[in-house]
Amino acid sequence: MNNRLQKAKTNLGKNFDAILVSSTANIIYLTNFNGFSEQEREAYLLLTKRNNYIFTDGRYLEVASKLKKFKLIEISAIKNFQQALREICKREKIKKLAIEENDIKLIEAIQIKKAVKICSAKNLFTKLRAIKDATEIKHIQEACKLGDKVFTYILSEIKFGVTEKKLAKKIQIFILNHDAEISFKPIVAFGENSSSPHHISSDRKLKKNEIILLDFGVKINNYCSDMTRTVFFGKASDKQKRIYQTVLATQNITIQQLYNLIIGKSYKHIKTSDIDSTSRKYIVSKGFSTIPHSLGHGIGLKVHEKPRLSPKSKDELKQGMIFSIEPGIYIPKFGGVRIEDLFLLTKKGLQKMTSANNKLIEL
Amino acid sequence: MNNRLQKAKTNLGKNFDAILVSSTANIIYLTNFNGFSEQEREAYLLLTKRNNYIFTDGRYLEVASKLKKFKLIEISAIKNFQQALREICKREKIKKLAIEENDIKLIEAIQIKKAVKICSAKNLFTKLRAIKDATEIKHIQEACKLGDKVFTYILSEIKFGVTEKKLAKKIQIFILNHDAEISFKPIVAFGENSSSPHHISSDRKLKKNEIILLDFGVKINNYCSDMTRTVFFGKASDKQKRIYQTVLATQNITIQQLYNLIIGKSYKHIKTSDIDSTSRKYIVSKGFSTIPHSLGHGIGLKVHEKPRLSPKSKDELKQGMIFSIEPGIYIPKFGGVRIEDLFLLTKKGLQKMTSANNKLIEL
Repeated sequence: MNNRLQKAKTNLGKNFDAILVSSTANIIYLTNFNGFSEQEREAYLLLTKRNNYIFTDGRYLEVASKLKKFKLIEISAIKNFQQALREICKREKIKKLAIEENDIKLIEAIQIKKAVKICSAKNLFTKLRAIKDATEIKHIQEACKLGDKVFTYILSEIKFGVTEKKLAKKIQIFILNHDAEISFKPIVAFGENSSSPHHISSDRKLKKNEIILLDFGVKINNYCSDMTRTVFFGKASDKQKRIYQTVLATQNITIQQLYNLIIGKSYKHIKTSDIDSTSRKYIVSKGFSTIPHSLGHGIGLKVHEKPRLSPKSKDELKQGMIFSIEPGIYIPKFGGVRIEDLFLLTKKGLQKMTSANNKLIEL
Repeated sequence: MNNRLQKAKTNLGKNFDAILVSSTANIIYLTNFNGFSEQEREAYLLLTKRNNYIFTDGRYLEVASKLKKFKLIEISAIKNFQQALREICKREKIKKLAIEENDIKLIEAIQIKKAVKICSAKNLFTKLRAIKDATEIKHIQEACKLGDKVFTYILSEIKFGVTEKKLAKKIQIFILNHDAEISFKPIVAFGENSSSPHHISSDRKLKKNEIILLDFGVKINNYCSDMTRTVFFGKASDKQKRIYQTVLATQNITIQQLYNLIIGKSYKHIKTSDIDSTSRKYIVSKGFSTIPHSLGHGIGLKVHEKPRLSPKSKDELKQGMIFSIEPGIYIPKFGGVRIEDLFLLTKKGLQKMTSANNKLIEL
């Protein structure tokens, strides 16, 4: 934790004198405290050369006072955040404050600007968080392992007439019963509904010979997993099989290409856009439409983090990154297939984090 | 729904020519579609004099195309949001775009400004959403009813040695099993932990003669409930009883004062800060510290909405508003008591939405 704070503060005094940390994920990253809402602003951290501060309100004073590396500043009707910030900036001679411009709301930025000059913290935390340390890898691995168990379990719950919502609910309860949380609302799509990559689970009932797309994730110790499997209820038709095998082959070919690049040359030269392009080209070469989403994404405290594996991404793959590879084929009014696994780039190569069976399953 | 769009567009052409809707809650409010993430930007609505647009990416094209009142604009690597927005603004001669400044991120604002001049939509949606229509009241009432059931159920699960986390988990599973969702992570706090108004449920085990604070909410049809009850495991001590009865009396006195104001004069003159002040004064008069949070908040698509019942709030209570009244007393290292109920302001007076027993309960 200490190390993370140090790393975040490395460039203090160059382009800016202090950093305002606002996103819940970055607050967890620096404090290990996960009690603040992701939907409302309940706290900020301020990192200066001399000090670290935490600003929060009466509801969190007791817990925040336990964060030993942070001086606690209470925000209340008597002293608002802007006033408290202005005081510290004056006292510590902070001329320029770096903020998370992809997290701070416009209305907050307007207020903060009244207290101190601001600039963008740019990709400071994005870069730090993209490379996972040993503890983070362990947590994500645990989440992936439980994800594998979810898959085995949910297969046993797939029955004629069950609804998408019911399966989604069962996934959630299974995860809760294993003392974990969901990392996002499970996606369960039957038949033609699976042609929508992010289908909202409905009361649609399962019929014979249908596609079942299952996309779910687990959160353990604040770290997320993410996995998609597509299975068939009854016998898969030739068309369904061809789609499935094409998606699986796409994933395999992409992994193989990535592996070749890793053992071939330095990590620095692996562009995520090249990896994305391999998948796309293969799918199109087989006569299908291109993937209507990114090929993959980094994962950690949030389900979607850097790096992004997409056509226009400028990201490069580096050792310690964990990301998904999730090609998909979606045919409107027919259905879709997606296969998603998580991978860790290690010194030696590529480590698959998710282990659930990816062979064509007919239930 | 149609009516909501019309109301939102009433002032188009006065201070601005179009409105950009970005928050997930406002998108649900106008479209009834709840599939977009609350944590990532996956869609925008644009309301102009002539048209309504929805911008989204490949993952949501199929569902978005079903929203008949909205023209679908695909955002992709080929055409990003800024480019698409610029084209429409040019075509429809939009000179000034109102945005949700409490939702739009600074980085988005910078991008949008490159396409069109922006201004704040101010409290446009806040005001609309603060007054609930019949359907909204019905949904919140259903959520409150299930909340009452949660309370009855969870009392039966309170046993010596149970952990806070386990009770919180049971609340979540009960809600899921009733085909609803949680509106926020349940707060379960035992003993001294209850002195922290927003305690994060831990592995702390329940001991004899302890306070148990339970704060939870249900979401049905996208609408939230919220309720807090504090009960005692074993016999409540004199001090515990005195705190409990003071909090209950505070709530009762506040409700009575509010009721008197309602029947006494027009709604327009009921300041939420006056209501908040009644509670605060009473608690302090009994020798306790003031409430370290607002007395209450509006509720609807989000757990916390307008009006805000707090010392510095400028909000006024109006017919159709649903809000919490939740006084609390918190004594560090000893414990806390909070009692929270939801109320609807009707033509005739005040309707209590939550019905769970609020008498002192010793288990």
